[in-house]
Amino acid sequence: MIKVGIVGGTGYTGVELLRLLAAHPGVELTAITSRKEDGLPVADMFPSLRGRVDLAFSAPDKADLTQCDVVFFATPHGVAMAQAPALLAAGVKVIDLAADFRLKDRASFEKWYKIEHTAPELIEEAVYGLPELNREDIKGARLIANPGCYPTTMQLGFVPLLKAGLIDAGNLIADAKSGVSGAGRKAEIGTLFSEASDNFKAYGVAGHRHTPETSAQLQRFTGDKVGLIFTPHLVPMIRGMHATLYARLTKEVTDEQLQALFEETYADSPFVDVMPFGSHPETRSTRGSNMLRLALHRPEGGNTVVILVVQDNLVKGASGQAVQCMNLMFGFDETTGLQQIALLP
Amino acid sequence: MIKVGIVGGTGYTGVELLRLLAAHPGVELTAITSRKEDGLPVADMFPSLRGRVDLAFSAPDKADLTQCDVVFFATPHGVAMAQAPALLAAGVKVIDLAADFRLKDRASFEKWYKIEHTAPELIEEAVYGLPELNREDIKGARLIANPGCYPTTMQLGFVPLLKAGLIDAGNLIADAKSGVSGAGRKAEIGTLFSEASDNFKAYGVAGHRHTPETSAQLQRFTGDKVGLIFTPHLVPMIRGMHATLYARLTKEVTDEQLQALFEETYADSPFVDVMPFGSHPETRSTRGSNMLRLALHRPEGGNTVVILVVQDNLVKGASGQAVQCMNLMFGFDETTGLQQIALLP
Amino acid sequence: MIKVGIVGGTGYTGVELLRLLAAHPGVELTAITSRKEDGLPVADMFPSLRGRVDLAFSAPDKADLTQCDVVFFATPHGVAMAQAPALLAAGVKVIDLAADFRLKDRASFEKWYKIEHTAPELIEEAVYGLPELNREDIKGARLIANPGCYPTTMQLGFVPLLKAGLIDAGNLIADAKSGVSGAGRKAEIGTLFSEASDNFKAYGVAGHRHTPETSAQLQRFTGDKVGLIFTPHLVPMIRGMHATLYARLTKEVTDEQLQALFEETYADSPFVDVMPFGSHPETRSTRGSNMLRLALHRPEGGNTVVILVVQDNLVKGASGQAVQCMNLMFGFDETTGLQQIALLP
Amino acid sequence: MIKVGIVGGTGYTGVELLRLLAAHPGVELTAITSRKEDGLPVADMFPSLRGRVDLAFSAPDKADLTQCDVVFFATPHGVAMAQAPALLAAGVKVIDLAADFRLKDRASFEKWYKIEHTAPELIEEAVYGLPELNREDIKGARLIANPGCYPTTMQLGFVPLLKAGLIDAGNLIADAKSGVSGAGRKAEIGTLFSEASDNFKAYGVAGHRHTPETSAQLQRFTGDKVGLIFTPHLVPMIRGMHATLYARLTKEVTDEQLQALFEETYADSPFVDVMPFGSHPETRSTRGSNMLRLALHRPEGGNTVVILVVQDNLVKGASGQAVQCMNLMFGFDETTGLQQIALLP
Repeated sequence: MIKVGIVGGTGYTGVELLRLLAAHPGVELTAITSRKEDGLPVADMFPSLRGRVDLAFSAPDKADLTQCDVVFFATPHGVAMAQAPALLAAGVKVIDLAADFRLKDRASFEKWYKIEHTAPELIEEAVYGLPELNREDIKGARLIANPGCYPTTMQLGFVPLLKAGLIDAGNLIADAKSGVSGAGRKAEIGTLFSEASDNFKAYGVAGHRHTPETSAQLQRFTGDKVGLIFTPHLVPMIRGMHATLYARLTKEVTDEQLQALFEETYADSPFVDVMPFGSHPETRSTRGSNMLRLALHRPEGGNTVVILVVQDNLVKGASGQAVQCMNLMFGFDETTGLQQIALLP
Repeated sequence: MIKVGIVGGTGYTGVELLRLLAAHPGVELTAITSRKEDGLPVADMFPSLRGRVDLAFSAPDKADLTQCDVVFFATPHGVAMAQAPALLAAGVKVIDLAADFRLKDRASFEKWYKIEHTAPELIEEAVYGLPELNREDIKGARLIANPGCYPTTMQLGFVPLLKAGLIDAGNLIADAKSGVSGAGRKAEIGTLFSEASDNFKAYGVAGHRHTPETSAQLQRFTGDKVGLIFTPHLVPMIRGMHATLYARLTKEVTDEQLQALFEETYADSPFVDVMPFGSHPETRSTRGSNMLRLALHRPEGGNTVVILVVQDNLVKGASGQAVQCMNLMFGFDETTGLQQIALLP
Repeated sequence: MIKVGIVGGTGYTGVELLRLLAAHPGVELTAITSRKEDGLPVADMFPSLRGRVDLAFSAPDKADLTQCDVVFFATPHGVAMAQAPALLAAGVKVIDLAADFRLKDRASFEKWYKIEHTAPELIEEAVYGLPELNREDIKGARLIANPGCYPTTMQLGFVPLLKAGLIDAGNLIADAKSGVSGAGRKAEIGTLFSEASDNFKAYGVAGHRHTPETSAQLQRFTGDKVGLIFTPHLVPMIRGMHATLYARLTKEVTDEQLQALFEETYADSPFVDVMPFGSHPETRSTRGSNMLRLALHRPEGGNTVVILVVQDNLVKGASGQAVQCMNLMFGFDETTGLQQIALLP
Repeated sequence: MIKVGIVGGTGYTGVELLRLLAAHPGVELTAITSRKEDGLPVADMFPSLRGRVDLAFSAPDKADLTQCDVVFFATPHGVAMAQAPALLAAGVKVIDLAADFRLKDRASFEKWYKIEHTAPELIEEAVYGLPELNREDIKGARLIANPGCYPTTMQLGFVPLLKAGLIDAGNLIADAKSGVSGAGRKAEIGTLFSEASDNFKAYGVAGHRHTPETSAQLQRFTGDKVGLIFTPHLVPMIRGMHATLYARLTKEVTDEQLQALFEETYADSPFVDVMPFGSHPETRSTRGSNMLRLALHRPEGGNTVVILVVQDNLVKGASGQAVQCMNLMFGFDETTGLQQIALLP
């Protein structure tokens, strides 16, 4: 049993970590911190956890996280970089669900997140926690930069084609749609039920933080210059993400070859489901589960390939992916504690 | 490992049984029948089960259900009564999620369901599958009449007060609200998204099949004549049920005594959560889980007691309850395979 | 053309007033105040009004509301009582959509709203703005206390029976369900999409401000002591309210007599639709319209009468009702500008 | 007052026509046909129309539609082509909301709709009813092919750029998202609330009927060969459509020039709202109204232009557009009866 701490347990990625870790057979939940909710039993805030999580939130200064084997940061950007150095020095592994260590280019980080980076010495060491692309590095890592929901769908959809050199890397379009929980558990007008329900809109079209992160990661897999247009949208559903990816084929290739390429790429990845060619994956087929499902299309047989990718933004797109990294880091089977079947209907 | 069959696997209670049983450590899924979908892999209809359920639907005449240890009927009313006699004769236990064996009064069944009962000799033997009230009988049963969602909430809310003789049995009001999945997976105009979304209505106010069933069950716990007004409503949510129960106190009793009565009644029931007095349980705190949560209120300290009861109508209100009965019948721990934590948010 | 001002135009009742008044043929919108949004074009905040409302918000101290013929207060409780005296003195009529003048008993107001009443001299003069019950008084009023959504449904449902002396006034139950917009346009966790969607719960069961208001109004119509249990619930829909009202008949009466009583009571009320006995009104049949629809039931022919009442909480339950009062106060036809047909689907 | 008939009044475009026409000052509703619902008062099926529409459905053979000045077909594909010839011969104008006359290429129609065209002699005469592009032709037309929701958004978004020769016509991508009402009022599993709610998916990616229609219309405005990838998606909302359009600029042009191009194109079109450059239009800003709103983006200042287009699929995308055509055909002001302000929230 490894000892696990969570910094920032009051948001949606926090409560989702709790749901997953409370049922993980190799984990002992040791501490959950919240500055505002010190002393409040976790189950008073999240009644879904009544009888399953007995811990109370503790103020950050009261919790001795150095006793833990691993600490998850489900916090706003900037918190992990402040606390990670001390934890790592004490031999504690760190998994950051925020962006602090996702960009190798410090200047780019500071430009997009408008925060000075206070632990630049750790940027290089941090491993980008996308197991399907970085499994071996994750196994040996002390510090994980856990990718968020949008970059996960874009990378797992585009990478096989980029690696194979089949598409125009300079002309990628990702039209992505997210459930509202992606905006977090924050008191804001824009994500009120009466604003977001029965409604659909794009946002951040002019430029979004996930574009440079995703472009940089994609760039690792191709010699050509990556050009990516990323358009996020808000869907009136709680959980779920759907990315509709467009790429131009630059080589002759059959549908069967495309399908085989994806099936081979993910043959050893238990959480990527390559559906039959021409399928239309639904977000609800992943609701509450760590599965990502994708399917390939080629409209009217032309040279545009469309990749449809779905996942639960809070699981494979956040907390489930973080637990998947933890499993790899501590020698558990990659699927331990992540076998929940999606809730359908 | 016991062998399990499901008759009628294409509805919502069917797929929910599959979700729960596929993860149950003591169960081998052996057969799933569907007249219309013979040969179709179950996971083609329900992609949430891809990689987890390998079975295909088989036509009823092709499936040898007598090989099973237990067969669930997730069928329309009338199917179980036709097939149960032969299965029981072959030593197979039967759990019926429909109404065939819920009413001990055959005439009442035939009046409300407009079907002739073809296995009346089994009515008496059938055990009403509400573990919290009939646990011992269920353990020894061959044939279970699994109660549905509305009656479960009403009985677990009213019974402690009726048994204790604290309320006017002739004046019970149950104002109940159900998610749309309670209407089943049937092609009907009334439950289309465009009809049921952003809308709220009552239905069946003049008289509903669950009233005689619930009244008859409640009657077992009191010498007074039960009078029950039951008003069901349709809520624009997929899963979830909320019952708001009203009763008039006939004896002096403190809030603490009321609370203690409920806590003692359900002390040994792992799936009933008596929340603190004055709580407001939310349906989502049970989404996807087998928990039923309830809380007591006494508006302005008067002599009306209000009991708020929530559950997931497809789990504790249907398939989860059926698996709970199965656990009791086959000597598993009552909670085996039913430990899913509710999905929140 | 009368000149109209709105104090507090940034909430849901404010924007709904704008939608209705912008299309009202006898009205000139003159000023809309907002402390925070001074200078912002109204249509920038509410793009539904682009091309239809050219006004900008103005700070309260910049807007000369004494130029108006009537001013609506779509503000938190306590604002109207501060500003109404000066406006009335300047000959401006006032319609308050908040609670400042709804309770004739000042002590009760101060207990429930925890605000000291600063204009007690106006309490007696204020007319309770429920046209169906107070039409003549409204015509001559200077100051209207516009009732909110819950009290409107409860009163229009119970009053015919109370006036006719047919029910036990001491034993009224109102189980009411509201769309989320009733909570207003405020940044709060509890009404986020990810919290309120796919969920159902009761709230304020122990005691709610609308109970004393409704009880006091109902008391006007009966010599018996009114006893009312009111249980509000939150429905995952934007607009709409459904009240399920329960009363015990104390006299012999036929279904036809009950139906006739309601039809006669509301024969001259263009916004109350008495549906056929046994109907199940849906909230969406009033979405965006000023209609309130109701239907009577008598479960299994017993002595409980159930009244189902639906309306749009923002129209008949708030802003539409306020415009209806304005029409009466200024000699317009009662239906002017309120003829929108409900949006279905 | 012109006399208006509706063939097929039981679907969503039918009831939406009724909502709009019942409030149109120049129209007398004369007949509404439905084979199945002969004799049923329209308001019994759609209670939103109680008190506003007194007509009953009549069987097609009983209704003398030749008395009408104009007949709308809100029917499945194939009905209008059967009945239009006789109506036109009798001097009745026809507006078809289905696809019978949308494609000038009969072979293409028969391929995509799998129906033999029985009135090919009318194909040439039929005017494509998109007022913003064909206003003058519509004024003189006897027979209108009313475009549906997807093609309306795509054309109004792409045409200004194509006409100006600014983009690569061969490389257009339309990623479009529709509310569920676009699927019609049909009893089908796929659009049940429990299937479509809290879910998102693409459909018809391999090829969709609206692609050839839209391509053919776009082709009229450019000498280059149009190549269009169209991906429709289903959004869990009742009404609303959002198209995210991607095009590659082929000429140097500033953002201001792009914005001016659109503003000039639609300067005389009262139902197209060109929002400020960089806006994010929301579908709800058009809910229940005939407005289409659009906004331009240029991600990171590159050579991809993104056009965001929203409308209510049942109004500007269907019935409102049909009434707009009727207004033009009969000399009413284009906006008569179409001034409803969107319902927000």
